[in-house]
Amino acid sequence: MPGTVEFWFDFSSPYGYFASHRIEQIAADAGREVAWKPFLLASVFKETGARPMLDVPLKGAYCLHDWDRLGRHYGVPWSLPERFPIAAKAANRAYYWIAAGNAELAKRFAQACFGAYYGDGRNLMRTEVLAQIAEPLDIDAQALLAAIEDPKWKERAKEEDSEAVHRGVVGSPFFIADGEGFWGHDRLDMLAQWLRRGAW
Amino acid sequence: MPGTVEFWFDFSSPYGYFASHRIEQIAADAGREVAWKPFLLASVFKETGARPMLDVPLKGAYCLHDWDRLGRHYGVPWSLPERFPIAAKAANRAYYWIAAGNAELAKRFAQACFGAYYGDGRNLMRTEVLAQIAEPLDIDAQALLAAIEDPKWKERAKEEDSEAVHRGVVGSPFFIADGEGFWGHDRLDMLAQWLRRGAW
Repeated sequence: MPGTVEFWFDFSSPYGYFASHRIEQIAADAGREVAWKPFLLASVFKETGARPMLDVPLKGAYCLHDWDRLGRHYGVPWSLPERFPIAAKAANRAYYWIAAGNAELAKRFAQACFGAYYGDGRNLMRTEVLAQIAEPLDIDAQALLAAIEDPKWKERAKEEDSEAVHRGVVGSPFFIADGEGFWGHDRLDMLAQWLRRGAW
Repeated sequence: MPGTVEFWFDFSSPYGYFASHRIEQIAADAGREVAWKPFLLASVFKETGARPMLDVPLKGAYCLHDWDRLGRHYGVPWSLPERFPIAAKAANRAYYWIAAGNAELAKRFAQACFGAYYGDGRNLMRTEVLAQIAEPLDIDAQALLAAIEDPKWKERAKEEDSEAVHRGVVGSPFFIADGEGFWGHDRLDMLAQWLRRGAW
């Protein structure tokens, strides 16, 4: 039976956001499930020495233009949030807490977080925003806020950050299928081919 | 009349090499010409603070694996040269000297340089290698060696390095069509769409 496709992303990564709109269909077309794995890109940047894109001369300007272009290309709501980038620690903890009980619900929460941040410019570092995102999904907002402060879920989210580094996740998004890594939203088409044809 | 597609690359860039095998067909399918523009990635790295891929933890291992995978995927000869990366200054000067007289011949020289380096592992920093690449193309090898040492062509190649930075070329390969920039071998399919459909 073909294995799950891992989708590693940072909520603060625009390319991760764009990928979040495409990965489920690509996996479904190949009869695969997707495991969503939020992590902090900062833990990878600590290894690679990379900096947030907008801080990098030339690349910053390129990316701003590119994100607008991708939004138009894929017909996905897009605007650069006022607060960008952010450290989405609380969202990651909330995600893994929800996922422990209901993986599908956690995915919908993640999609809603992305939409709130890049569609509506709402700051995911504010826990009350996370609670507001959770409510319409019938997630207990008080329990969610408690989980965010719970050392157990802090630890769990940190473990995923370490796991990302350990697995060679070099950026966001990053996909792993059958042990094969694909880095970047730009590699979704190649991932799709890999899933269809198998290894080459 | 539709404009030329600029193909910016560093001879020492594997992704530039892979793109060199695809760009002509993509442009031709859209009725476009390609202007090949070698430059030194080092001049861009001075702005962006980037380092050669293999020096970067995590990314180095990813890229080594990815280059092998791309070689198999596109059926393009590929091996990592013993001497890698290199500063391909002499090849750039030779290219622009040839291009001043015959743009098509310069393109064939560039293709042969890529092939000699990534196919056969020959070090393009050695001017005698460049002379050997030139000879079967009926390029005067002695005149080429003289051009490489000529301040005029040193200056010309440097101007292209500055031009790359000035134009926002953030890496190799980088494509510019109708003023629109596309960064990376991974963006060739999007470039192809842009050329076919026009701006979106």
